[in-house]
Amino acid sequence: MRIVILAGGVGGAKLVLGATRAFASADVTVIVNTGDDFRHLGLHVSPDVDTMIYTLSGKSNRELGWGREGETWQFMAALRSLGGEDWFALGDSDLALHVWRTMRLSRGDTLGAITGDVARAWGIAATILPMSDDPVATHVHTVDGILEFQRYFVERRCEPVATGIAFDGADQARPAPGVVAAIESADAILIAPSNPLLSIDPILAVAPIRAALAAARAPRIAVSPIIGGKAVKGPTAKLLADLVRRADNATIAAHYAGLIDGLLVDTADSDEAVGLPTASTATLMVSDDDKARVARAAIAFARATGRR
Amino acid sequence: MRIVILAGGVGGAKLVLGATRAFASADVTVIVNTGDDFRHLGLHVSPDVDTMIYTLSGKSNRELGWGREGETWQFMAALRSLGGEDWFALGDSDLALHVWRTMRLSRGDTLGAITGDVARAWGIAATILPMSDDPVATHVHTVDGILEFQRYFVERRCEPVATGIAFDGADQARPAPGVVAAIESADAILIAPSNPLLSIDPILAVAPIRAALAAARAPRIAVSPIIGGKAVKGPTAKLLADLVRRADNATIAAHYAGLIDGLLVDTADSDEAVGLPTASTATLMVSDDDKARVARAAIAFARATGRR
Repeated sequence: MRIVILAGGVGGAKLVLGATRAFASADVTVIVNTGDDFRHLGLHVSPDVDTMIYTLSGKSNRELGWGREGETWQFMAALRSLGGEDWFALGDSDLALHVWRTMRLSRGDTLGAITGDVARAWGIAATILPMSDDPVATHVHTVDGILEFQRYFVERRCEPVATGIAFDGADQARPAPGVVAAIESADAILIAPSNPLLSIDPILAVAPIRAALAAARAPRIAVSPIIGGKAVKGPTAKLLADLVRRADNATIAAHYAGLIDGLLVDTADSDEAVGLPTASTATLMVSDDDKARVARAAIAFARATGRR
Repeated sequence: MRIVILAGGVGGAKLVLGATRAFASADVTVIVNTGDDFRHLGLHVSPDVDTMIYTLSGKSNRELGWGREGETWQFMAALRSLGGEDWFALGDSDLALHVWRTMRLSRGDTLGAITGDVARAWGIAATILPMSDDPVATHVHTVDGILEFQRYFVERRCEPVATGIAFDGADQARPAPGVVAAIESADAILIAPSNPLLSIDPILAVAPIRAALAAARAPRIAVSPIIGGKAVKGPTAKLLADLVRRADNATIAAHYAGLIDGLLVDTADSDEAVGLPTASTATLMVSDDDKARVARAAIAFARATGRR
């Protein structure tokens, strides 16, 4: 049972963790958004890949929702005393991953190869594939001008009204090695309840990935980020309101039209007609049991579609 | 009273700290060895400049003799878990200086400008000048082959027998802005009791600095690293034994021939004839009072030479 999951950061990592609990970890492959990647203080930071790595290796900080548990902040204090930018917090332990990755990239290693080595070093049996080894940069067009994703998301807290989103470099970016093959050989493909506009669209903006998904023989199920008629996470709601005016399952289903065979929705939304087959479960993932249950429901729904 | 001091790391920083205690800090300029600088994990580390900065800003770790007080090591632990090289310890706070410097160098700022900004940010009134903004790399030729300085010094603990020392790039390196002017306008010039072969020679290998020192009108006094007929620090003794066969004040005086007007020696060595005027004090610098006293003795000796 080869499971492929397209995912962004926190919400995506929850579903992937659930899948590794509900099924064999080694059978799970996750294709991770790298549109959030950026250079900060000269270091290559890959927020969604990092979140995936920390979550699957049991190192994630569940209180913060990002970074590592038991993190310390001596580096940030010293940086601040030098007048350095402190809007993006880099923990002392977290820094090791960024410094290590940056050094290896400068030697010519790929993001995918480095990610694989980190996963092995930290005992992750699932396969973590960045969507591309080539640079793709999500830019949010806002009423205050064009903002790099992290500037919009972290520094400005999604406050400026968005007018559009662009994925610079996506048209030239090639899928990372293994990405298309994983989609082609999958037995089930899930789209995580990550932000469709910010976390999944960058992956789909890499044309060969979109084409592979459109042509996949395996059943394709998206887990909706909508619960009770609202987006669970603030940024998703804010962006859907800014750009689409609606945050409902019909909007999500239409967004993924041609790429999914079904939408797994929250039980509170199970009577909404979305123009696609739906199944429902309680999709809010708090405990690890929740995560495994949602993964199980998504895979059961995939099997029930009868494809492949 | 403009005081210029040529210095390496720990021993040099002690004398410079003493000078800032005994005289007006703003009148003290230190020209620091950068031959130890190296790239580690993609970061530009400048050990002697760092030691000078930490010492003069009151941040140095007096137990370790390097790095910052109250340092933590989360970064190193995480790096080790990734399989990263851990022979050179980078503390969590210390990292901020390396990351900040590396980022600014990559933007085109000079080592001298960055060092000046750090000194200002951390309230250092003395002027810290790297000897050069251009790369100079000390290599130790040993019976085990040619070793980068930090590999020889830290990783191999000076164990391989040295057969020679080279300062790669020194022939093309220009003095950093301010260095030659400081020497020319000084009222007294001191050479710190740093390792002559490893810490002072790289500075003197930059030809315009050596020429400026040779032509200086100010009195020039070296503080000997020899105490009681032995080098205080292991590496100095080891290298002098490997390369010069002798560790005594006559050897030090001969080494600096034409560049100094007198040698300040330890009271235990005051009857040794060295072929140059000498003065003596207890040169072992443990307390801050020791450091100020040695600086005062060196400056009094400089004044007594009658030059300028």
